[in-house]
Amino acid sequence: MILTVTLNAALDVTYHVPALVPGATHRASPTGTRAGGKGVNVARVLHALGHDVQATGFAGGDTGAAIRADLAASGIREAFVEPSAAARRTVTVVSEQDGTATAFNEPGPRLSIEDWTWFVGRYHELASRADVVVLSGSLPPGLPDHAYAQLLGATPVPAILDTSGAPLLEGAAARPHVVKPNADELAVTGEADPLAAARRLRSAGAGAVVASRGADGLVAVTGEGCWRAAAPEPLHGNPTGAGDACVAALAGGVAAGAPWPAVLADAVALSAAAVARPLAGDVDTTTYRRLVRLVSVEELDADLDR
Amino acid sequence: MILTVTLNAALDVTYHVPALVPGATHRASPTGTRAGGKGVNVARVLHALGHDVQATGFAGGDTGAAIRADLAASGIREAFVEPSAAARRTVTVVSEQDGTATAFNEPGPRLSIEDWTWFVGRYHELASRADVVVLSGSLPPGLPDHAYAQLLGATPVPAILDTSGAPLLEGAAARPHVVKPNADELAVTGEADPLAAARRLRSAGAGAVVASRGADGLVAVTGEGCWRAAAPEPLHGNPTGAGDACVAALAGGVAAGAPWPAVLADAVALSAAAVARPLAGDVDTTTYRRLVRLVSVEELDADLDR
Repeated sequence: MILTVTLNAALDVTYHVPALVPGATHRASPTGTRAGGKGVNVARVLHALGHDVQATGFAGGDTGAAIRADLAASGIREAFVEPSAAARRTVTVVSEQDGTATAFNEPGPRLSIEDWTWFVGRYHELASRADVVVLSGSLPPGLPDHAYAQLLGATPVPAILDTSGAPLLEGAAARPHVVKPNADELAVTGEADPLAAARRLRSAGAGAVVASRGADGLVAVTGEGCWRAAAPEPLHGNPTGAGDACVAALAGGVAAGAPWPAVLADAVALSAAAVARPLAGDVDTTTYRRLVRLVSVEELDADLDR
Repeated sequence: MILTVTLNAALDVTYHVPALVPGATHRASPTGTRAGGKGVNVARVLHALGHDVQATGFAGGDTGAAIRADLAASGIREAFVEPSAAARRTVTVVSEQDGTATAFNEPGPRLSIEDWTWFVGRYHELASRADVVVLSGSLPPGLPDHAYAQLLGATPVPAILDTSGAPLLEGAAARPHVVKPNADELAVTGEADPLAAARRLRSAGAGAVVASRGADGLVAVTGEGCWRAAAPEPLHGNPTGAGDACVAALAGGVAAGAPWPAVLADAVALSAAAVARPLAGDVDTTTYRRLVRLVSVEELDADLDR
């Protein structure tokens, strides 16, 4: 079982408007709400690919109930903790004129020490039954930067961490199996060069660093070597959720014990399959199957990992 | 008691962002939610001025519960009907850069015939105990254009109608005491001139027509004469809610049996007091008291009302 952790799960609301005009009043057609947050998106992708997956994190209040109901409706097993503070919403406004998506993300609930203690107990129990754990996304306002590090310290199986800023730096030091920063998130290391930044995170404690670089594909710095992987063609669509699809592929690969080049090819193809679909957490399986054999994976100079 | 009816009540959510950039992802700080919809705003203003007011309409689901809880917290007596379909939300994004407000209004719940029958029963009971009834705002998607006309036909006391489009035209024919269109809403009559448009609505059946024209004040066409009323100075602030404050003044004036010139002066001053406050339903009482003696009310040629 792959366990995904979403400490700041969200109820994602999408509105369609003919065109977004700042300062105007828009009649907004809501096109449904669904469970979101990066770990939830990872769980959705893994579930679509037939993996045994379970989603946990915090999902309180009315929004939390809607998140849990949506996961149940999607057939995704969940074990969310329900604090009294309500889960956040995200509002995405899609302009029908040009297809652009404008997002408004609430910061999330303010959790108490009791909420955290309750969750840590639940996490220990779930992680002990998992093959791989995925920790994804921002921390809600009440949690300290070392929250992921604390969970990683108590994780008996390989863990994949996808977060940013101080929680990424503190988390990397707690020796996760893989961290997956994107180009912007690498900047927290203070290194401008992606490879140098990835090596910095590995020296900090991460077993491997897989950096996603949008259309430029992935760069991986691991104990077994360094690789660059890229899609065979430019991708068109909505990049939201591509990073979560990449993490889903890494989790599936780690669970299966696959070699790095195969895992990276899978991650690039699955990211591309997410770009082909408008909603984060969805993947176009036709695109995935077509591209997975076409991804180029190039081994980089061994001495890069010094 | 003044009864306000809000068939499409809303839970108003406001987000603050540093600047609204279409296509970008924003960290949105929610600055609270509150009960909204035009009739709710009218009730809020009347309550602030010390009137005995009661609010009704539809408020179902989690959003409806939040609307009712917010009214209770504000000390406003409510008797909303609770259909199974949830009340809508409105999301307003305020840019801290320039103060502009960009609004996204959901259409509202799809109501059933049972919901409507249930509400009509409740309305009869409440209206029979009211001195004045106020019917405000858009209709939720499930209701026909003659919904207000049906309520007006069963209203034993003076009623004030503030809506637009076909519900305004059908409502005017059901002989409300006053209708309060704004400049845009007058266009439904097919007349370009505001006075001609107001006379058209009066010939359709409305006892009086008070047309709000933003900074140009009000034009009133009544059985006792025609007037123009305007503020003594230009107003700066947020015009959202000015129309609802105007309706609150009309309701208060009708309940007190005040003469039209006094009612109109009150309506202009209270509208200005709403412009001075950022949230619809709030009025600046200092502005109101200062301006109410300074509003100019000019009687227009008597033969205008032909």
